Amino acid sequence: MMKIHDFKGFPNPARVRIALAEKGLTDRVTFVPVDVPGGEHRRAEFLAKNPAGAVPVLELEDGTTIAECTAITCYLDQLDGRPELTGRDAREQGVIHMMQRRAEAGLLDAVATYFHHATPGLGPQLETDQNREWGERNKERALAGMRYLDGVLADQPYLAGDRFSMADITAFAGLIFADFARIDIPGDLAHLRAWRARVAERPSIGHA
Amino acid sequence: MMKIHDFKGFPNPARVRIALAEKGLTDRVTFVPVDVPGGEHRRAEFLAKNPAGAVPVLELEDGTTIAECTAITCYLDQLDGRPELTGRDAREQGVIHMMQRRAEAGLLDAVATYFHHATPGLGPQLETDQNREWGERNKERALAGMRYLDGVLADQPYLAGDRFSMADITAFAGLIFADFARIDIPGDLAHLRAWRARVAERPSIGHA
Repeated sequence: MMKIHDFKGFPNPARVRIALAEKGLTDRVTFVPVDVPGGEHRRAEFLAKNPAGAVPVLELEDGTTIAECTAITCYLDQLDGRPELTGRDAREQGVIHMMQRRAEAGLLDAVATYFHHATPGLGPQLETDQNREWGERNKERALAGMRYLDGVLADQPYLAGDRFSMADITAFAGLIFADFARIDIPGDLAHLRAWRARVAERPSIGHA
Repeated sequence: MMKIHDFKGFPNPARVRIALAEKGLTDRVTFVPVDVPGGEHRRAEFLAKNPAGAVPVLELEDGTTIAECTAITCYLDQLDGRPELTGRDAREQGVIHMMQRRAEAGLLDAVATYFHHATPGLGPQLETDQNREWGERNKERALAGMRYLDGVLADQPYLAGDRFSMADITAFAGLIFADFARIDIPGDLAHLRAWRARVAERPSIGHA
């Protein structure tokens, strides 16, 4: 059976849990908890699975490990030969990967940088490397990212067009993280708020 | 005809030019130069094509624009239905996207952050937002990234295994950028140096 090493409730684990549920694969995976607040992800045993020291990690039955949410999502989406989350043809793939990267760099990663650098983050034992100015600047980037996504959603129901995709999962996880880091969605971003409410109704979201 | 808006010689444009050549698509594209040193990528006309203000951007015949190198590479690689650079099955896709992201975050983006934050970068007109401490820390990250890639290449000829892939293109472009930013490959990283020499012999590299 495949394993997912993660920490339930955190934003990047949520991305993969949503993808698993969208693909109907949740029951084909064993979840192995990693004690991220306790620093387990920085210890040698976990670093052998992912040298980046981040959850989640997918471990295949032969022991191969695949880290990075985009990579795990591509793998899971291709398993049944019917990719729905990452694109059915060249054009869908291109647009989905573009919007995924924008949601990641402009929202999720920006919120993460704010959280780890400009707030107490995971606490003084783990946040040994803070740069407050850089963290604060990334809060501004995250807000700009929300505004950009809101503009995209003014014209279409999902971030890559008419269909729900990996890009929506990334942005949704970015907003989970923004809540946690207390970066509010600006009140005038009605399209982003409506999209979030619509996505939240998907059954897969209950697995995040 | 498809267009590529870019600036020849820069690292991210190199990624897409190599991918085009690997796929035999160079002649199916018109290159449109963007005056990045002159700041053209920050002006409204270009931002309409890519709000991130970065080259390269692929423009399809119907005017659709696809930005982000990974997305452009996925699109190009799928055009003929025979993906070679981004993976032929779920497992290859997962491993390639993982290694691509590691080469990007751990090397290319780290070098870029060092260049734009801790050196004069593109000059005072464009580098209005520097954080020297963050830049210097990213030089260390880039060196750690090189060391990680060297370790991967101790056991296999290419970053995702036995075959050349998008991950190798990203890392190769990262080393082009490292040269430009004057971050030398540490002398003891023999596997990375040998890999670089081997990749440099590919005909596609002449198009970078």
